Amino acid sequence: MNTRANEEPDVRALIENWAKAIRAENLDGILVNHSSEILMFDLPGPTQLKGMDAYKNSWPPLFKWLHGSGAFDLSELSITSGDEVAFATSLIHCRGKEDNGDNAQLEVRLTIGLRKLGGRWTVTHEHHSEPSR
Amino acid sequence: MNTRANEEPDVRALIENWAKAIRAENLDGILVNHSSEILMFDLPGPTQLKGMDAYKNSWPPLFKWLHGSGAFDLSELSITSGDEVAFATSLIHCRGKEDNGDNAQLEVRLTIGLRKLGGRWTVTHEHHSEPSR
Repeated sequence: MNTRANEEPDVRALIENWAKAIRAENLDGILVNHSSEILMFDLPGPTQLKGMDAYKNSWPPLFKWLHGSGAFDLSELSITSGDEVAFATSLIHCRGKEDNGDNAQLEVRLTIGLRKLGGRWTVTHEHHSEPSR
Repeated sequence: MNTRANEEPDVRALIENWAKAIRAENLDGILVNHSSEILMFDLPGPTQLKGMDAYKNSWPPLFKWLHGSGAFDLSELSITSGDEVAFATSLIHCRGKEDNGDNAQLEVRLTIGLRKLGGRWTVTHEHHSEPSR
């Protein structure tokens, strides 16, 4: 699905570094390539989160769920990139612990939307979900 | 979030016509601008649907749920478009009936990914979800 071989590696590296920052519970690393106007459709409610503060606050609950030893591993990452706009799809294999201590595994679907702003690829949208019905 | 004023109206019209075809239960109209290699993350399981046949087969259960008088209405539709790649985000207000006859309402999050192929905007990815936790 690659449209520009020259842009796809940059977008791929950005997303792989974002996932690495999540595994390291490095909040600054998670946010470094994100727009202040990000629109987040997160796995838990509410329906949507708008803007950097809401996006930033969505991560500590996941860190708690990962319990320092969980998994957040991308697979089937696919990038569709033009010169100025790109989107990516992936699955995320997540392993953590519920509040009651039970081990849990999730298979999450991920879509990321990006724009090139000031010469830098910037994430303006994320959509994380499980099938719900 | 529009990056190209000249492409955004075409992408918006495509998506509005797609939603109109869903409301009309017009399967050909739903599929007309979709890639044979579409990757669908649907509201119900399984985790992912790959290719036109799987995508096509996902619609009759929704038609049944809409019962000919339901709702499938987009709001907050936002397009981010370059020359060759675009993505769109929207909410979908859905109203239908469960198998047991109960009225149901859903607030669905939608992300659509598109490429311009042979001069035509083509949907290569859809992600539909509700918050799940």
